[in-house]
Amino acid sequence: MNAVGYYNGEFAPLEELKIPALDRGVYFGDGVYEAVRVDNHRFFALEEHLDRLECSLAFLRIPFSMPRTELTAILQAVVDRVESDHQQLYFQITRATAMRTHAFPEGGVPNLLVFSREVPLVDVRIPKKVVVLPDIRWKYCNVKTLNLIPGVLAAEHAKERGCCEAVFHRDGVVTECSSSNLLMLKDGALVTAPADEHILPGITRGHFLMLARQKGIPVVEHAFTLEQAYDADELMITSTSVHGLPVCEMEGKPVGGRDPELLKRLQDAYRALFISVVGELR
Amino acid sequence: MNAVGYYNGEFAPLEELKIPALDRGVYFGDGVYEAVRVDNHRFFALEEHLDRLECSLAFLRIPFSMPRTELTAILQAVVDRVESDHQQLYFQITRATAMRTHAFPEGGVPNLLVFSREVPLVDVRIPKKVVVLPDIRWKYCNVKTLNLIPGVLAAEHAKERGCCEAVFHRDGVVTECSSSNLLMLKDGALVTAPADEHILPGITRGHFLMLARQKGIPVVEHAFTLEQAYDADELMITSTSVHGLPVCEMEGKPVGGRDPELLKRLQDAYRALFISVVGELR
Repeated sequence: MNAVGYYNGEFAPLEELKIPALDRGVYFGDGVYEAVRVDNHRFFALEEHLDRLECSLAFLRIPFSMPRTELTAILQAVVDRVESDHQQLYFQITRATAMRTHAFPEGGVPNLLVFSREVPLVDVRIPKKVVVLPDIRWKYCNVKTLNLIPGVLAAEHAKERGCCEAVFHRDGVVTECSSSNLLMLKDGALVTAPADEHILPGITRGHFLMLARQKGIPVVEHAFTLEQAYDADELMITSTSVHGLPVCEMEGKPVGGRDPELLKRLQDAYRALFISVVGELR
Repeated sequence: MNAVGYYNGEFAPLEELKIPALDRGVYFGDGVYEAVRVDNHRFFALEEHLDRLECSLAFLRIPFSMPRTELTAILQAVVDRVESDHQQLYFQITRATAMRTHAFPEGGVPNLLVFSREVPLVDVRIPKKVVVLPDIRWKYCNVKTLNLIPGVLAAEHAKERGCCEAVFHRDGVVTECSSSNLLMLKDGALVTAPADEHILPGITRGHFLMLARQKGIPVVEHAFTLEQAYDADELMITSTSVHGLPVCEMEGKPVGGRDPELLKRLQDAYRALFISVVGELR
């Protein structure tokens, strides 16, 4: 099968999976999620995703108490039902199923929705274009919630302009992209916004920073401006399925392309780390 | 029956109603909604709610093309299946059912979820307490979307402190409450934040302003500060089911209670308008 779903104990082909209309995810987006790479049916960095999930759950005070071993077994069972060697696994936890009232329902039990399907890794050899948009999101972008309308609108805007992503800024200071982080190479250093409330602490972002430090490449976790981004030696995008994609054009202006060696060193280091976990990519 | 649901052509008892896991409402909150009072099985101000729905749909560019007469017939069919004379009708429209990618899916068809159930009108003779919280929401609070986590967290916070609502402010300037508008009486005038991007243009709020103008009561659509709110003659809350509820305490400090005559004049005027549409309330 190509896409498999799971909800509170039941498996189904993803297109056939149904959930209660009163799941609070449906009418409040009252839940959190994670997306994990699964290649050769092996998870990459699952524990780090589960750590981040715990932070998101704690922020929203969702009392999800399933032991990690049990959750992992369910995730593996979904992944094993999908034939592809190149999957993206998605899972979300919502607060409860209950009649619609804003405050938390008494005795609510969280819901677990999981699905996995074939999603190829993005080819990071071919640079892509991006647009720039004001960051109109709420205050806590570090929490991976289901309230994703700003990301949806930005992604559509980018797509309509032939771009792969939208770079967000607050008053001219770059935060991140609509569903990925933005990193910059400048004078031999790797620069990116700090993991504060304005950005999601991306797992891939974290690995890029770790690998750079291991290789003696200076790492600067400091927000940069749009002006500085236009002047970067390289700009690159990271996310679960995007492992250092260079940006060649931003809002129609050429950017980056000035330090391809360092860019490739980082891409190659990430790929080596990735393969060391999931095995060779076919 | 006490609670009835409908989804894309099918009716069911609300607790049994199911929707596809791939409805974009489930994982992006990619949709908009309305909540309408239905007393004696008659809608109050449905056309105004449908006008606002159109604005929300336009903002999110959701191509919902069902004629108003058809939508109204469905809403009436749901309402008629519920026995109670005091209902709150809820309906939401999501962009499509599709595999999860942020940008709009090609050829997506919007989904219509409707439910109605017994919800009593709030007794506005008994003043209530409120808490105060920073407004942490996104930029376009005038759009009635399904991305409601800030409202959920605020409502829970208020409930845990024995309060009925949370008053939001941006840098000390009051916007609205977690799921209602806040109006102030001061020196004989009705004061409330202007219907800009920071607040939802409440239908009940609009009726209170209209009625005040009809009665020669000065109306000031200008944002007021928390300090001014503490100094108000009266503070009151309006929403679909809350028709001018006075606030007696804010963050533990007594507020309002200084112009009960004007407050009652407005409450009575609203009630008369309401009854003129739905009939006497039993």
